Amino acid sequence: MNLIRTREECYLNLNPLQTGGRTNAAVRLTATSFIDGYSVCDYCKGVLHLIEKPPICQLTKDLADFLGMDEARLTNGAREGKFAVIHALLSPGEVIVVDSNRHYSTYVAAERAGVRVYEVRNTDYPEYEIRPEVYRETFEQVLKETGKPPKLALLTHVDGEYGNLVNAYEVGKICQEYQVPFLLNSAYTAGRMEVKGKELLADFVVTSCHKGFGIPGTIGVLATTEKWIDRLFRKSIKYPKKDIELLGCTARSEASACLITAFPYVKERVKHWEEEVKKARWLVERMESLGEIEQLGVRPKEHDLIRLKTPLFSKMAEKERKKGYFIYYELEKRGITGIKPGQTNWFKLSTYGLTWEQVEYLYSAFSEIARKA
Amino acid sequence: MNLIRTREECYLNLNPLQTGGRTNAAVRLTATSFIDGYSVCDYCKGVLHLIEKPPICQLTKDLADFLGMDEARLTNGAREGKFAVIHALLSPGEVIVVDSNRHYSTYVAAERAGVRVYEVRNTDYPEYEIRPEVYRETFEQVLKETGKPPKLALLTHVDGEYGNLVNAYEVGKICQEYQVPFLLNSAYTAGRMEVKGKELLADFVVTSCHKGFGIPGTIGVLATTEKWIDRLFRKSIKYPKKDIELLGCTARSEASACLITAFPYVKERVKHWEEEVKKARWLVERMESLGEIEQLGVRPKEHDLIRLKTPLFSKMAEKERKKGYFIYYELEKRGITGIKPGQTNWFKLSTYGLTWEQVEYLYSAFSEIARKA
Repeated sequence: MNLIRTREECYLNLNPLQTGGRTNAAVRLTATSFIDGYSVCDYCKGVLHLIEKPPICQLTKDLADFLGMDEARLTNGAREGKFAVIHALLSPGEVIVVDSNRHYSTYVAAERAGVRVYEVRNTDYPEYEIRPEVYRETFEQVLKETGKPPKLALLTHVDGEYGNLVNAYEVGKICQEYQVPFLLNSAYTAGRMEVKGKELLADFVVTSCHKGFGIPGTIGVLATTEKWIDRLFRKSIKYPKKDIELLGCTARSEASACLITAFPYVKERVKHWEEEVKKARWLVERMESLGEIEQLGVRPKEHDLIRLKTPLFSKMAEKERKKGYFIYYELEKRGITGIKPGQTNWFKLSTYGLTWEQVEYLYSAFSEIARKA
Repeated sequence: MNLIRTREECYLNLNPLQTGGRTNAAVRLTATSFIDGYSVCDYCKGVLHLIEKPPICQLTKDLADFLGMDEARLTNGAREGKFAVIHALLSPGEVIVVDSNRHYSTYVAAERAGVRVYEVRNTDYPEYEIRPEVYRETFEQVLKETGKPPKLALLTHVDGEYGNLVNAYEVGKICQEYQVPFLLNSAYTAGRMEVKGKELLADFVVTSCHKGFGIPGTIGVLATTEKWIDRLFRKSIKYPKKDIELLGCTARSEASACLITAFPYVKERVKHWEEEVKKARWLVERMESLGEIEQLGVRPKEHDLIRLKTPLFSKMAEKERKKGYFIYYELEKRGITGIKPGQTNWFKLSTYGLTWEQVEYLYSAFSEIARKA
């Protein structure tokens, strides 16, 4: 079956999962060149992170540096990185503290490891903010209920529901105070904005490169500090080059080669993060000016992922023939995609990587649709 | 950095890891179309195996059928599938029995799960055969030493060292007799030859599609029978669509779309397996006729992965300026690649997917090199 996905070339795609993963021409060239199964293993050196041709060895060092950590490995993605850390550090029944805005896979990774989850609650409507001091309250609760501090704390640097950026350094300080190892999930930050793990007092950083580094997947990074290298990257007894938690090699695909190609672009693009935030703020302001539209999450926006509550559109939907789907089709007519079909009460979108002209066009499209009311 | 890998287009590639993973034009088209991160998630239905566009939902059902099992899921590869089964079934300290020709990642997956490994030894030089009855001996040993049968037995259907095909059905019968769940690793068989798991009495089948289905990676399949569905594909309490052992979604990349495109080709190619075996046997016969070359592993070949002991070439290497590397460079001059550089005592190669003309050319190249002696 020939499968052609036209939307990426023909539409403005607002899907927050995807805006940071769009590939450029150089990355596509590398991908095509390395598309055959196991092609990055042409010159195997016993394990993925030691391969010199293509220079995955150098890439792995560069990624550790880029994330402000001491040592890094490629993974199959952020969730696989999270599971690796949890599995390496915790035994079943032990406690992990996570923010309540965490991705579902954080919870599922904890379930897989059989550990107990305590959640740092957010402030609820309308900001759903994760306040660092609530980590302290949650640690105290764990201490009270189990007699011990948690074995690990995880923070979702920017979450995928509201696009809230949390002050990771403040969380890191509380973790240090309680001597709780600190895992930062930077899937929505690394590759977009500068993330320096050690400066944020993180012991572990995971990220997703098909989400934030403009490449195909599945691929992520797991980085740590000197202190944890031996524990996290524990070697097989029989195969001394193989990291047990990574089952030897992880992203043994063209994605690793693509990351090498994408890396200089990514290093450059994080410098322009402020401009990305400006676009998000501009769009929020305009959208709210349409009336009966409210940005959820912390204000003003500090990220491109925007969640809007849109009673304006849900009221319109009642009168529309296509009901809740009307907004999806109205946008599609205007060359815009990536909003979940059927949703009008609220939706998420991302302005990441759009030009100012595109952001303006986006607003004009919504504004046209709103005027139909 | 622009990375161009020319070898796949310009050389005969003999690397056994790669011959079953070569992509055709249709697959490359799909790959390019879905190359952006998370593009298969355009029409998310809550979990990868339920996506209808592209039809991963149908693919997953077709794969279960293709492998002769009741239910299947995509994974990040064979090793990740093996770990999922071990982790779902065994607690730390429990016993798994594996063949001694198993891939290193089988051992590392067991280490990661903290389980004890008993190995079914092979017959050693020159055939290194795994005889099914040795599973019985090993089960008896486990019973004697631990008082219980093992919790799982794994068989590498065809191994990556000698290309030996083991009679899985006979292993399955012994597993049934001892009521030991049976995991078949078909990374080197599925996608090349017909593999029908239930007919082989397997409870679990894992495979690697970037190794055996002509697509990019990383992607594999994990399939099971009715009996084990609930245990293996246990759902998250909070997220009832998410399989815990898979952390929700696995191969969330263009590889899933590529597998849909490749699937009809793969179904067709397994019908021509006998021809592939003929080519391997023909080459072995000719190579051995050169003298001081001996095929290791079971004779005659029943698989395209060939391991040759080559004292002929190691003697030549002593006199060559490039020493052990000479064979690699001599082959390279003749447009042939995929033999590990530096190796002359023995090497592995695969004839999979070569035309008869290419196999003949391959022999003529080796024969030319041998005549230099």
